[in-house]
Amino acid sequence: MSTIRDVSKLAGVSVATISRFLNQSGYVSKEAEETILAAIQKLNYKPNNIARSLAGKKTSTIALLVPDILNPFFPEIARAAEDAASRLGYTLILCNTDHNPDKERNYIDVLINKRIDGIIISSYTIRPEQIYALEAENIPVVVIDNAWHDTSIVSISTDNRAGGQMAAQHLLECGCRKIGHICGPYHIAAAKDRMLGYEDACSQQEWFTPSLMVYGDFSVSGGYHAMRELYDKHPDVDGVFAGNDLMAAGAMKALHELGVRIPDQMKVIGYDGIQMDMFSPALSTIAQPIYSIGELAMTYLDQMIKEKPLEKKSYPIDVQLIVNASSRLP
Amino acid sequence: MSTIRDVSKLAGVSVATISRFLNQSGYVSKEAEETILAAIQKLNYKPNNIARSLAGKKTSTIALLVPDILNPFFPEIARAAEDAASRLGYTLILCNTDHNPDKERNYIDVLINKRIDGIIISSYTIRPEQIYALEAENIPVVVIDNAWHDTSIVSISTDNRAGGQMAAQHLLECGCRKIGHICGPYHIAAAKDRMLGYEDACSQQEWFTPSLMVYGDFSVSGGYHAMRELYDKHPDVDGVFAGNDLMAAGAMKALHELGVRIPDQMKVIGYDGIQMDMFSPALSTIAQPIYSIGELAMTYLDQMIKEKPLEKKSYPIDVQLIVNASSRLP
Repeated sequence: MSTIRDVSKLAGVSVATISRFLNQSGYVSKEAEETILAAIQKLNYKPNNIARSLAGKKTSTIALLVPDILNPFFPEIARAAEDAASRLGYTLILCNTDHNPDKERNYIDVLINKRIDGIIISSYTIRPEQIYALEAENIPVVVIDNAWHDTSIVSISTDNRAGGQMAAQHLLECGCRKIGHICGPYHIAAAKDRMLGYEDACSQQEWFTPSLMVYGDFSVSGGYHAMRELYDKHPDVDGVFAGNDLMAAGAMKALHELGVRIPDQMKVIGYDGIQMDMFSPALSTIAQPIYSIGELAMTYLDQMIKEKPLEKKSYPIDVQLIVNASSRLP
Repeated sequence: MSTIRDVSKLAGVSVATISRFLNQSGYVSKEAEETILAAIQKLNYKPNNIARSLAGKKTSTIALLVPDILNPFFPEIARAAEDAASRLGYTLILCNTDHNPDKERNYIDVLINKRIDGIIISSYTIRPEQIYALEAENIPVVVIDNAWHDTSIVSISTDNRAGGQMAAQHLLECGCRKIGHICGPYHIAAAKDRMLGYEDACSQQEWFTPSLMVYGDFSVSGGYHAMRELYDKHPDVDGVFAGNDLMAAGAMKALHELGVRIPDQMKVIGYDGIQMDMFSPALSTIAQPIYSIGELAMTYLDQMIKEKPLEKKSYPIDVQLIVNASSRLP
């Protein structure tokens, strides 16, 4: 990156004059102005680069990139990361990327230009190269809710496959004799891994057939329609594992309408651990420690910003089975 | 605010030397360093001040202060404000204040120091003097979800009293013969106004008695306990208006447990318009146009930052009755 001295050399104008020009703090001739501007453009010199060094190298600002703060998983991540950021002396910039690679790239450019200290990112679309590029700009990154093993990228994630297996196993232990799965979008690794966990637990059962797996889109209405589809195909299903809590809420809505009693006739379990008390009956789930994920991400990011060594790159976090009324044994 | 030239005068050192020192871009004698540092301290000169002018006066960063992003009203505000901010070329800093005046004051100090361009604030604890102080620093403020009439403060808010009346009126029109109200915290103006609206609609009814008003704390469990209390006192209640959707969800949970059928035996309506499809049955509500509130707040803030005149100070926004299964006529 070019400095004010590079501009000074190229323009043949003193640093003081350039500083006066940038600072608008005194007379600069029209001619000098033009030479300085030309040099600034040629060197792609960004005043923010100085701004940053003037401000003492760090901006004490970090960014959190999430797909959509309206997905109830992310407000808790945001709350936790912001609490920790505030304690550690940072402010937190929030960006919604909508799983849109262009929007994501554009945000990253803006954040680099703002000389942000670091980024916490949850994304299914970002590629490792983009993270290396940020690291090359000396902007550390912590990835949550996703993991690239065999890379140097720091990540905090849960074992979705083990969690999916835990969910299906719980329904088996409740005595369910035919268990369906409402799967999230297949291109999302977390959704796919939870489905694989379901298969691990169920594919050896005599009742198993692939048509017990139906697709939702991680939304309430996706879960609602998937449940109706599953019930149409398999009216003898007596347990359903939804790939996230929102789809489980949608499934319970469909079951209420169909007159199917929960948990007597159908046991339901979700995944995530968002405010389960909102649902009736209260939803069983595989809870991720969402707050801890956000808090740990900020803690590790702070260490990276301060150039303290991290013990390892990949931080797997345990999930927990929470049994509520939606799957309680009779 | 002092400039680099003030520091130069006081320290008796050239602007170029100070720039080299701040920029760490060349040799500065130990002695000069000490004089510069002393001058900087004496003048309370903040490198950020230069940083800002170097970067072209504006930081293109705004802040959103909310009590708690975990309250489902605020992610939608944040999403809307951030969408608009991003379109207009700003990034958005998120701060959670927890209705804590000290935390709020502390954030405001940090934001002033960061030379933020403007602030959107939702707060029941902030005082008008604090907003005037921000305006004196040339940091415009838009207040949402609250309004001070007879001040110069720009605010976007809904008429909670009219909305509360609309909710109770709807239950009367559905044929309810005894309507209870679950009120939010009394010190929150919105909660109090919604309760006054309920009184406007119901206090002249022959069945009315103040014990039909019970208190929750705007949470699901607050609504749950308030509903049980109301039902204990008045088992003949056949309609309930909860001061927000979360308390309505809690009330529906309590009613499910009590074996009271919704809407046949009890009609329920909430307030806010958060994702109603999550509940079973789907919840009737007085919907605030939450996204519009966040979007308008950012639009007006942008105009204030650009020193364009606003038509008025107070922007009241209409609410809307949304009828769902929880209060549908038989």
